[in-house]
Amino acid sequence: MRALVLDPAPSGRLRFTADHPEPEAAPGEARVRVARAGICATDFGLKAGYMGFSGVPGHEFVGVVEDAPDPAWVGRRVVGEINAACGRCDTCRAGRPRHCPHRTVLGIQGRDGAFAERLVLPLGNLHPVPDGVPDEAAVFVEPLAAAFRVVEQVPVDADTRALVLGDGRLGLLIAQVLHRAGCRVTLVGRHPDKRALAEGWGVATAPAEADPDAADIVVEATGRPEGLARAIALTRPLGTVVLKTTCAEAVRFQPAPIVIHELTVVGSRCGPFAPALAALAAGTVDVAPLVAATFPLEEGERAFARAAAPGTLKVLLAP
Amino acid sequence: MRALVLDPAPSGRLRFTADHPEPEAAPGEARVRVARAGICATDFGLKAGYMGFSGVPGHEFVGVVEDAPDPAWVGRRVVGEINAACGRCDTCRAGRPRHCPHRTVLGIQGRDGAFAERLVLPLGNLHPVPDGVPDEAAVFVEPLAAAFRVVEQVPVDADTRALVLGDGRLGLLIAQVLHRAGCRVTLVGRHPDKRALAEGWGVATAPAEADPDAADIVVEATGRPEGLARAIALTRPLGTVVLKTTCAEAVRFQPAPIVIHELTVVGSRCGPFAPALAALAAGTVDVAPLVAATFPLEEGERAFARAAAPGTLKVLLAP
Repeated sequence: MRALVLDPAPSGRLRFTADHPEPEAAPGEARVRVARAGICATDFGLKAGYMGFSGVPGHEFVGVVEDAPDPAWVGRRVVGEINAACGRCDTCRAGRPRHCPHRTVLGIQGRDGAFAERLVLPLGNLHPVPDGVPDEAAVFVEPLAAAFRVVEQVPVDADTRALVLGDGRLGLLIAQVLHRAGCRVTLVGRHPDKRALAEGWGVATAPAEADPDAADIVVEATGRPEGLARAIALTRPLGTVVLKTTCAEAVRFQPAPIVIHELTVVGSRCGPFAPALAALAAGTVDVAPLVAATFPLEEGERAFARAAAPGTLKVLLAP
Repeated sequence: MRALVLDPAPSGRLRFTADHPEPEAAPGEARVRVARAGICATDFGLKAGYMGFSGVPGHEFVGVVEDAPDPAWVGRRVVGEINAACGRCDTCRAGRPRHCPHRTVLGIQGRDGAFAERLVLPLGNLHPVPDGVPDEAAVFVEPLAAAFRVVEQVPVDADTRALVLGDGRLGLLIAQVLHRAGCRVTLVGRHPDKRALAEGWGVATAPAEADPDAADIVVEATGRPEGLARAIALTRPLGTVVLKTTCAEAVRFQPAPIVIHELTVVGSRCGPFAPALAALAAGTVDVAPLVAATFPLEEGERAFARAAAPGTLKVLLAP
């Protein structure tokens, strides 16, 4: 089948091939024909060596089930949770399957991903997409779920002052989720056009070089390793930093302010699909303006180049 | 009066003087004659430039009230909370006086401390010491309160597996508090004699070079900047790191595992005095074996040298 394949580091080369082997569904797994897939900052991390991944990347997708252990699923339009747990280990039995040490992760760890004609995932990972949600919106369910993870981990209310650092794709989703959750959120970013987009949703914004008051919650979604120190500096005593950025790099960093101000730093990764699907179905989160361009799989290298250009929002692939 | 005085960085010189000015009590403050004061890792941090402090260090003490706005306090034996808040700012009104941005901190920030004949603190900071608790135990209330802060921030139960990294003074107190709170705690440290002490209290131990299973909670009390990375590596997914070490230094550090494993890192500083006093009065926490030596104030430099020697437990000063 046609696919984009990432060669092992250090080359990190991404190349199109027309004859990648079809993925084989293990027992309990469904095969999905990919309709749209999104390029994420994590995919650039993989190219740079993060997770030591090689194979087909891509973990944001919407597609149609072609084959499944339960035939009722065949033909359904679905999105899929990316962590495939073993279901048997202590971590799974303790109710933490997303952190199963034996898991594979779609397009990230031990499992080919969505930048291909087809992928396989356990049937239990799939969620049907409501009819009213077009493919171009459904492909945002995975990152939008990661945005909903923030309010799952750190409850907010109308008195909560939040800053979101980074006006990239994830930052814009998180700012919307926090705004809809009713808290007082300011998106801090370097791109006037993205800040204007957020302001159109009713979200307050500040330029990256601003010096906002310290907030109750600061979500670090800059995609840069130095974002952590800035987030810590902008969090009030006893406040919470939510850390979203994953970089292969180490940073030089002074932990003392975490202790002195008794901050809580919460790592935040994948989130719940149900509220993300519900928000898209209800139209309470706006993703349409986030699509910068859609490329066919054959133009994957061009798509990545476009996605890497400063200020680009979401680039989609249409296998 | 007699006092130990820390010269400003970079000299970081600590010297005894017989004619330091008497501290002046501001309105609402009591004057306390110090009976015993403890040398803490933070005091070595101050010498190294942490907080940019100069003056009289010392924040662990027990003493007798000589003068107070309420005469009922005169003659009482007391310990004292070290943060003196303004009481008027937004942070104080929000119920977070220990984090008041205008606060002074005894022997750490803007206020002379306990390595002197006398100190002053707001009357509201003082706690009477029960008769049955000797000075040599009462002087541990401040660090023991910092140990109780851990269970105030991170509730534990009989199913909780905890690691305490660092068998120094604070690590030994934290291990006892976690053990008495009923959780399954292992103290990880480099000193066989200190581990033997912990085992005498019924606390499991492991040598520093051991590779224990990842725990639900890892308390980082190594006093070393590289302790954070080790704590992160030893925490199970969705688990909690409690960070106690304050160092002036920056560390090279990779934040990605915090995100991948969705860890929570909680900075932990000063704690509640009431449970610490109650534990010492009830004898449920053992501090007597932690006293390595007691020196008169005149021998402060020797006392610091002794406290700095590898493996030394608590060194006290007797002004």
